[in-house]
Amino acid sequence: MANQCCGKWKKNKSYCKNCPKKAKKYKKKNVVSREKVHITRLQKQMEFIIEIDKLKTIIRQSHIIDGTKKENDAEHSWHIALMALVLSEHSNFKNIDILKVIKMLLIHDLVEIDAGDTYAYDEKGNKDKREREELAAKRIFGLLPKDQGKEYYKLWLEFEELKTKESRFASALDRVQPILLNYHAQGKSWKEHEVSKQMVIKRNEYTKDGSRKIWKYIEKILDDATEKGYLINEKH
Amino acid sequence: MANQCCGKWKKNKSYCKNCPKKAKKYKKKNVVSREKVHITRLQKQMEFIIEIDKLKTIIRQSHIIDGTKKENDAEHSWHIALMALVLSEHSNFKNIDILKVIKMLLIHDLVEIDAGDTYAYDEKGNKDKREREELAAKRIFGLLPKDQGKEYYKLWLEFEELKTKESRFASALDRVQPILLNYHAQGKSWKEHEVSKQMVIKRNEYTKDGSRKIWKYIEKILDDATEKGYLINEKH
Repeated sequence: MANQCCGKWKKNKSYCKNCPKKAKKYKKKNVVSREKVHITRLQKQMEFIIEIDKLKTIIRQSHIIDGTKKENDAEHSWHIALMALVLSEHSNFKNIDILKVIKMLLIHDLVEIDAGDTYAYDEKGNKDKREREELAAKRIFGLLPKDQGKEYYKLWLEFEELKTKESRFASALDRVQPILLNYHAQGKSWKEHEVSKQMVIKRNEYTKDGSRKIWKYIEKILDDATEKGYLINEKH
Repeated sequence: MANQCCGKWKKNKSYCKNCPKKAKKYKKKNVVSREKVHITRLQKQMEFIIEIDKLKTIIRQSHIIDGTKKENDAEHSWHIALMALVLSEHSNFKNIDILKVIKMLLIHDLVEIDAGDTYAYDEKGNKDKREREELAAKRIFGLLPKDQGKEYYKLWLEFEELKTKESRFASALDRVQPILLNYHAQGKSWKEHEVSKQMVIKRNEYTKDGSRKIWKYIEKILDDATEKGYLINEKH
């Protein structure tokens, strides 16, 4: 049967792969079809880019420093990505892949488009957080071409699992940034939620797994914040 | 004079570098002073990180896609940094340094903290834009430790000058994103400012220097936007 025409070309106005006479034309046709696939790829990427615009509407609990509004997830993600660049020398780890850290930080909150923001000190909300975010990750990264969707889903998981040096450093920055905002906004959100210094330490202490130097700096800030009455001191 | 004590150690309670007896203690002292320098470095970086929080208050002309508010510079910077990751395969250039592109995009609008946002189609405002932004770049990047300040200032300049492949691709994304937002928000800002298709093309056509594929996609969007009445057609 080799090199014989299968006859299908008449039916679908295309050419048969097995027909030697039409081989050249078939090849040309194949190029066109590859181009079509390519257009679909860009289209999918654009759909993802449009969808993630919603991150600008996911409101967090921290106020921006001038106190005029609460921060949203897109602003937060930008801030910590730039923090990663500026502070990478203070990571506990040598030869950290900073591009990977930034990728993680740019995408880590996208799941909140579906799952919403869960306040760090909301115990009830944090119980089913992982399940809600898992579903969201599958839907949102699923908008991308398969290879990219898979890459971003894996990056998000890596960030959540805190096993690699990049995820530990990235997560440290994710924790440190709201503390910086709260401190410089005179503890506005801490006061609203009656947060204590001990609660902040308990929840964020593992920041030192990413950067001991930065955690040391934060400890000083927490002492000062408690002294100034921005944070409750449970020991009193 | 070698290996003789200079006698200064009594005066400043430190030890002389040239005194062999005190050499060990001097070394220890030096470590402390290096630590002090280090603390100052982190402090400077933190001051920069606090200052740039203001980018979240610099309002742009484009509305976010759901039309509920105008976008700010921090949200915009996050969006295009993530676009750079997703769309890098469509750049005109092979072996593009994507980390450099992302660095540029994360910092490119910081100058607007002092200089404000100038609308793309505001001819008057665009006249002294460069001068205002130059001063801002010097002040804001000047908050960082010298080496970093210099690096970021150079990156900002490179982005503005559009001579390298990274700056051309980065700039293409900076131009394309507001077009995407406007199109998907039914031309809200275009209508407010009576923008025509020809104005958008004139101002953004050089996007194709960064990515011909993405510009081709945008051209289709502009045709459709004009057909739908989001943009004025000067030829009618």
